[in-house]
Amino acid sequence: MSLGEFDIIARYFTQADARSDVLLGIGDDAAVVAIPPDRRLVVAMDTIVEGVHFPAGTDAADIGYRALAVNLSDIAAMGAQPSWMTLSLSLPHSAISWLERFSAGLLDLARHHGVSLIGGDTVKGPMVITVQVAGLVETDRWLTRAGARAGDLLFISGTPGEAAAGLASIQQGVPQSAASRHLQRRFLRPEPRVSLGRELRTLASAAMDVSDGLLTDLDKLCAASHCGARVDIDKVPTSAAMQELFDAATCADFALAGGDDYELLFTVSPDRAAAVPASASCIGVITEGTTVSCLRDGQPVTVARRGYDHFSAKEAAP
Amino acid sequence: MSLGEFDIIARYFTQADARSDVLLGIGDDAAVVAIPPDRRLVVAMDTIVEGVHFPAGTDAADIGYRALAVNLSDIAAMGAQPSWMTLSLSLPHSAISWLERFSAGLLDLARHHGVSLIGGDTVKGPMVITVQVAGLVETDRWLTRAGARAGDLLFISGTPGEAAAGLASIQQGVPQSAASRHLQRRFLRPEPRVSLGRELRTLASAAMDVSDGLLTDLDKLCAASHCGARVDIDKVPTSAAMQELFDAATCADFALAGGDDYELLFTVSPDRAAAVPASASCIGVITEGTTVSCLRDGQPVTVARRGYDHFSAKEAAP
Repeated sequence: MSLGEFDIIARYFTQADARSDVLLGIGDDAAVVAIPPDRRLVVAMDTIVEGVHFPAGTDAADIGYRALAVNLSDIAAMGAQPSWMTLSLSLPHSAISWLERFSAGLLDLARHHGVSLIGGDTVKGPMVITVQVAGLVETDRWLTRAGARAGDLLFISGTPGEAAAGLASIQQGVPQSAASRHLQRRFLRPEPRVSLGRELRTLASAAMDVSDGLLTDLDKLCAASHCGARVDIDKVPTSAAMQELFDAATCADFALAGGDDYELLFTVSPDRAAAVPASASCIGVITEGTTVSCLRDGQPVTVARRGYDHFSAKEAAP
Repeated sequence: MSLGEFDIIARYFTQADARSDVLLGIGDDAAVVAIPPDRRLVVAMDTIVEGVHFPAGTDAADIGYRALAVNLSDIAAMGAQPSWMTLSLSLPHSAISWLERFSAGLLDLARHHGVSLIGGDTVKGPMVITVQVAGLVETDRWLTRAGARAGDLLFISGTPGEAAAGLASIQQGVPQSAASRHLQRRFLRPEPRVSLGRELRTLASAAMDVSDGLLTDLDKLCAASHCGARVDIDKVPTSAAMQELFDAATCADFALAGGDDYELLFTVSPDRAAAVPASASCIGVITEGTTVSCLRDGQPVTVARRGYDHFSAKEAAP
């Protein structure tokens, strides 16, 4: 059974509970929304491709979830509240079961965060999914990567590396266990740290989400802030599930260079550090200069693999 | 030579002249823009795929132009002024000459309309291009497809069918001539009717852009407005270039069912019709009921082919 573009939208992407600030939703040439005068608009767009951002054969519900989650994570890193999204779906064919599961994964997460789907496009083509999310933030109160200053403390939320460990456990066919299920869920269903981002809005000096690996993303934060950083590897939170399935060196590699965690990496002035929520850990300090260095047992160590550059599809090196 | 994601953005998609309402542009987790309190935000997203929306081998400059133009056309149909865009570029490889030409086509058109590129994503994958454009419109002054009333006059801008004739002349390898060059330019470089849309904002009762074919898009306008229409085929503007290269029946088919024109189809109350700009032609009238019918020489005629549904990749029929 083949469905046309309008059938697909009407059947699978209509939400019961649209936001009141959506003045015109799906179905016209464009959508219309209202922005409160004391808010700025924050806009993020991410694209995911089978075989690049998720393994072939991933459940469509997980793909739908991910397509939105990676964008919510960007909005969270700005300290903004997500509001609306648009969806571009390029699909080779309109398989009903796939669409049902994809839209369920997407819209369940959208509902959880109060996000309305206001428009988009469905086309016949190779499977490529793009979501744009717009959010709102108090005037002059958004976070950027550029505000870190020497002496600020460096924090990471959650336990970095678990998503990379989950992906590896899928790719390597690790036997199912509580640990592997936990890690795979961390990869397949990353939780965008929206409420943490909102808390950080008046607390952090700089923030970004970790999608390509802790160290390579820290490099970007430091470049934007014109500073360096020193990471105390011993302070990076460790995952019991990860340690159960992988050796210590692999766990360290996942934690420092694994992508897809969608945790928040942020900096806070030392006098405000006590206010940082317990879900985040202090893992280092911002320094003068431009170098991101690592310590283990108090001694400098060189970490060769730092993360992933999706486009050049090569490992990022220092 | 392989370029990473950040190199691509910095090298090819940096604009010299960013808008002052762009508070944070490309390079962070998300962009931040300011919306004037007396404006609503209008959002459109379109995706184009090689082989579906443009022929394989199309000049990358034309692809870049098209990716933005189709979105500007949606914004124009709402009566809004385009402001910013985001770009998702899924590319199998980062060929420098392709990127140079693509970005030139995209950014030249953006500059012409005062649109800033504020963010997006570049990923390795099959060639799929998504652009989202946001525009601004005066509070409660946007156009929709839903406002047409029986008795309103029906207008179309420009000369519909030329883009389909241009595509056909490319596909059929019609020898180059002034006529074929004109038509091919109409297909490759459709002019979004932004200034006309702005004029229509206080004049039209309903509007949409014609992307899938005049009759099939009129069907959508009538469905949204809960009305019918009667099109006087003899009043549909004819193109001398089209008539030079194609027979009368083919020209009529292009005009009524050809896609990709990106002209504006709109309705105006008869008492305001004198104010409609001369670039548009009155081609019929809105009626009671739900039927879109056609007249030729004053007699009802049945037109089988009405347009194109991109997803089901079949001709739209009544």
